[in-house]
Amino acid sequence: MERSVDSELRQLKEKILTMGGYVEKALDDSLKALIQRKPELFDNVYEVEKEVNQKHIEVDEACLRILARQAPMAADLRLVVAVIKINTDLERMGDQAVNISHNAKRYITEPPLKPLIDLPRMAEEVRAMVRFSLDAFVRGDVALAEKVLAMDDLVDGLKNQIYRELITYIVGDPKVTERALNLILIARNLERLGDHATNIAEDVIFAISGKDIRHGGGAGAQAGSTQK
Amino acid sequence: MERSVDSELRQLKEKILTMGGYVEKALDDSLKALIQRKPELFDNVYEVEKEVNQKHIEVDEACLRILARQAPMAADLRLVVAVIKINTDLERMGDQAVNISHNAKRYITEPPLKPLIDLPRMAEEVRAMVRFSLDAFVRGDVALAEKVLAMDDLVDGLKNQIYRELITYIVGDPKVTERALNLILIARNLERLGDHATNIAEDVIFAISGKDIRHGGGAGAQAGSTQK
Repeated sequence: MERSVDSELRQLKEKILTMGGYVEKALDDSLKALIQRKPELFDNVYEVEKEVNQKHIEVDEACLRILARQAPMAADLRLVVAVIKINTDLERMGDQAVNISHNAKRYITEPPLKPLIDLPRMAEEVRAMVRFSLDAFVRGDVALAEKVLAMDDLVDGLKNQIYRELITYIVGDPKVTERALNLILIARNLERLGDHATNIAEDVIFAISGKDIRHGGGAGAQAGSTQK
Repeated sequence: MERSVDSELRQLKEKILTMGGYVEKALDDSLKALIQRKPELFDNVYEVEKEVNQKHIEVDEACLRILARQAPMAADLRLVVAVIKINTDLERMGDQAVNISHNAKRYITEPPLKPLIDLPRMAEEVRAMVRFSLDAFVRGDVALAEKVLAMDDLVDGLKNQIYRELITYIVGDPKVTERALNLILIARNLERLGDHATNIAEDVIFAISGKDIRHGGGAGAQAGSTQK
């Protein structure tokens, strides 16, 4: 028979997965609205983000309930503490999808600035980081979580490249200033989504292995949880 | 005689206060370096941020230890869960002080752009939010925490004002693009510091009253934990 703590932890994981699904949906719609210039998708993002916020509260309540009733130990306790943190990251990822929408909304009312430079590529990388971090959580897959950590450097590099390129656009033609700034801010929103996926990956590694790899505590992959 | 859980919770609070002190120091030095143009202060910021990261790990370990050994209940449990979250926010506030330094470093190598517009005022507001959120935590002062929530709107307004003003600078003279962008990014770093202080205030209110006021769950003060 399943222990009562196991059943509660299983339900907790399911809640995080549902929440992760909402975050992915919000992110996808915000990017599709930007790249395919479909303003009708923005409302979806705002609606889905409300679901994320609702789950945010539910997950926190579930964690408190499990800690109070079950007093979980060892790996179970680490899992609950990891979920408290993952919950916060997911909620902020929902906020970032909304921020992308705000910045994209202004952008797509005007003619496009060249073909968005490397933004679609950066978006794809970040999208993969989000997916992998959630998969790593479900499967308890440390190797996949480590892959997420390694991807963060590429995303940071793309962001810097986009920034430099857009500055040369502005200097060349100040009339593009607002549009270029919108894209710079969207690149930062994406970078932060990548940072949150990195945080989730670190929490997964901690929950499974008990190893705190943040702040250089791990071997191999870069483990900083910095955000710019 | 003091219960063992009380003694551990007291030590936990002290750790958070020490960590908060480091965050304040890092923020003060990064702002002083920017406003008084003192590049020699940047190294202090990087050093102090290392202390913040060290405390980040220690606090997490202490929380896990208390949960495992003491299985705290009710208000004690809420306090530990709040500290897990406050710890994350403080660590990211340290990151933001570093980001301000990165952006300010580039800025102060060139002649200033007018007298920094409303940035010093915005910095003062955010500085107060950080202080009040930590004071609210130490004293368990819900009214002070609510004051922090109310200050967030003013900070967001200042950020938007700074953004609009800097765009007109760029459009008027593209040579100032990089410097203006540095200031726009610093305004965003400050805004995020304010958001983290808001998160801390919400966690303080939750720890003390058991009320989750996030996502519109509270009466009165605006309680969103959004970040742009």
